[in-house]
Amino acid sequence: MPVQIRKLDSSTPGFREQLSAVLAFEAGEDEAIDRAAATILADVKARGDAAVLEYTNRFDKLEAQAVAALEIGREELQAALAGLAPQRREALQIAADRVRDYHQRQKQETGGDGFTYTEADGTVLGQKVTPLDRVGIYVPGGKAAYPSSVLMNAIPAKVAGVQEVIMVVPTPAGVKNELVLAAAALAGVDRVFTIGGAQAVGALAYGTATIPQVDKIVGPGNAYVAAAKRRVFGIVGIDMIAGPSEILVLCDGTTDPDWVAMDLFSQAEHDELAQSILVCPDAAYIDKVEASINRQLDGMPRRDVIRTSLTNRGAMVKVRDMDEACEIANLIAAEHLEISAEQPQQWADKIRHAGAMFLGRFSSESLGDYCAGPNHVLPTSRTARFSSPLGVYDFQKRSSIIHVSEAGARTLGKVAAELAYGEGLQAHAGSAEYRLK
Amino acid sequence: MPVQIRKLDSSTPGFREQLSAVLAFEAGEDEAIDRAAATILADVKARGDAAVLEYTNRFDKLEAQAVAALEIGREELQAALAGLAPQRREALQIAADRVRDYHQRQKQETGGDGFTYTEADGTVLGQKVTPLDRVGIYVPGGKAAYPSSVLMNAIPAKVAGVQEVIMVVPTPAGVKNELVLAAAALAGVDRVFTIGGAQAVGALAYGTATIPQVDKIVGPGNAYVAAAKRRVFGIVGIDMIAGPSEILVLCDGTTDPDWVAMDLFSQAEHDELAQSILVCPDAAYIDKVEASINRQLDGMPRRDVIRTSLTNRGAMVKVRDMDEACEIANLIAAEHLEISAEQPQQWADKIRHAGAMFLGRFSSESLGDYCAGPNHVLPTSRTARFSSPLGVYDFQKRSSIIHVSEAGARTLGKVAAELAYGEGLQAHAGSAEYRLK
Repeated sequence: MPVQIRKLDSSTPGFREQLSAVLAFEAGEDEAIDRAAATILADVKARGDAAVLEYTNRFDKLEAQAVAALEIGREELQAALAGLAPQRREALQIAADRVRDYHQRQKQETGGDGFTYTEADGTVLGQKVTPLDRVGIYVPGGKAAYPSSVLMNAIPAKVAGVQEVIMVVPTPAGVKNELVLAAAALAGVDRVFTIGGAQAVGALAYGTATIPQVDKIVGPGNAYVAAAKRRVFGIVGIDMIAGPSEILVLCDGTTDPDWVAMDLFSQAEHDELAQSILVCPDAAYIDKVEASINRQLDGMPRRDVIRTSLTNRGAMVKVRDMDEACEIANLIAAEHLEISAEQPQQWADKIRHAGAMFLGRFSSESLGDYCAGPNHVLPTSRTARFSSPLGVYDFQKRSSIIHVSEAGARTLGKVAAELAYGEGLQAHAGSAEYRLK
Repeated sequence: MPVQIRKLDSSTPGFREQLSAVLAFEAGEDEAIDRAAATILADVKARGDAAVLEYTNRFDKLEAQAVAALEIGREELQAALAGLAPQRREALQIAADRVRDYHQRQKQETGGDGFTYTEADGTVLGQKVTPLDRVGIYVPGGKAAYPSSVLMNAIPAKVAGVQEVIMVVPTPAGVKNELVLAAAALAGVDRVFTIGGAQAVGALAYGTATIPQVDKIVGPGNAYVAAAKRRVFGIVGIDMIAGPSEILVLCDGTTDPDWVAMDLFSQAEHDELAQSILVCPDAAYIDKVEASINRQLDGMPRRDVIRTSLTNRGAMVKVRDMDEACEIANLIAAEHLEISAEQPQQWADKIRHAGAMFLGRFSSESLGDYCAGPNHVLPTSRTARFSSPLGVYDFQKRSSIIHVSEAGARTLGKVAAELAYGEGLQAHAGSAEYRLK
């Protein structure tokens, strides 16, 4: 049976509403899950290691005697790396090197060392940039256990200069993912604990006798992990709570339809809530992609997931021209945006909102997912309107530098005092006025 | 009666625990407030303007007939600016200019235009930086209505290139703060609505017929505003939820004790939960500051607030030497850190965690609050361990650029396919392999 993908046409009345309906996604907030996470967090905060051990043994069906026994040593990580088939080890190494290169460049180009400047009266102003001391990386243990995610989360932290990167990864029934451990070795992760769930988030946020408190927790997890991260936000930093993954392909009709169909699959295969959308001004081309989808689907091992995802959340949108395609792309603010077109740069210049842009027909999203270099942790659910890929900047913070000279204090003191009186803050004024003398 | 400020000595047993107790602050999360905010948000989402109008008329005791009547026009803002006493207008203008200069420098120095680089095989990688389209600024209407905050929130947004900055400020009983409106005019705020509370947050987050939806909401508010901001996070971006303000003064004993006493007052006068801490290796100097506090207190109009704040949350810490003072400063990760010392840079180099550093005896915090240039919206409650002053970067976001050449796709495609097979994602592999041919 052919896949029933929704087809929209921008020239029909009600198009914008139809598009909004396709994009609508509400993360179901489950009160029961939130309460369970809160209980576990409170328990870990109060009882530390003992609570972490109990929850881990219970939920992951382990029989560890102490949290220390849940730590995976450096040697085991290195052994996992050494044990990989040479071709896979080499691929992982190339990916790690390229991700590191890109993020080093990002650090350089985005003022990673801060700045200062001196004004005429000798006053120095600026910004000091420092890495976070210690970061926790959550790695899921189940179906979404991706070694590439270990690289993408840990490497920017190390490039930023984070002293200690602590990874947590649950190992239900004691099963370890060797590729994940190998990736941890390559990425320079400092310590690994086989714990997960809200108890792992709590351990990292509050610290226990065995697990050190971190300053920020990043990485995807299930609903309990997401709820726990929301709750510890403020005690530690967190990254975005990720929604389902999305790809938007803008195509001018010049790319092989099979390629575009496979690109849509590559997102749809992630999970049933993933979203794949094609936008194209060429109706005949859209039909070709649709035919290719139906021709290729049965060959895909994950065809059931792909079918569900394309049926429920996919769409093919016929537009007037590529300019309108770009307008719609800005409205959608997709996590992954492929501009599969001749001379893609002209369209890229019109894009204001996207997590990552893949330009030209050779830039399939999957190259970016693994090894192009830029981060694959990207803003989902239209949050690219206001947020950014995970980057070195997420593992650094800035401190303002204000070194006022004696002469500077005479000028600035008058201004500050005047405004402080205006706000009714006389001690602020007094403090400035002392420096006028 | 002299102020009873807690005195600690780093050489006594139990010092770290005592210090932790001084720093401990739990923002009381009030379930009733959270529920009320949720109800208002849901109502604004469902009924738009009608709900905003009803809540505003009820809570702020107004009798507006339409949300449009709650908008303050550009002319009224300009009139407020023109109506200020010349000295005050000039002070506000100087502050705005200096804040703008600093943030322009920040934009330049932190890769505000993005970057790209080309690899040997022609693959282009990089990062595009774009401003947010539209930003909402919340300005409180009550005792904490600070024109300086309007400058500090709006100017970085405009420097970033935000097209439309929409300010909301409640006007209980119709009372407008002329200095706030004047600051809005100077800062280039595009539209102002006299609404506040959770209803204002809802209007900005969801949009109504009259009030456009924004991409991010920044600015401080009361507990209802904070609860509403937490709840709309994800639909729009938000800034940090600010805790009570703090100052930490590291002093080597060479600054006039009256100056330091007044600097401690300048934080303590904000509110009763504000925190002022002095750390110094010189016990005799600490005594002098204490004497000065008691001598100067009665002259302060806000002496009751200062007394309560210093008594309940203040501290004077005797340390071994300035090195230990820096260690403690890193532990505290203060919002405002004054290093009031000869040759302050040597100590500043040891500081890893602080919102803003004020170096040397002429750099009183109040100069930074108003007009030095750097932002006065800073991380509180030890969050300087992982977060930064409000800046241009908060009003920009980044998109990765990946433009793989045909030759590049041949190299990267093999790596990506190998790793995709390792993760069981065959469509990802297929998508990469199409580009190998």
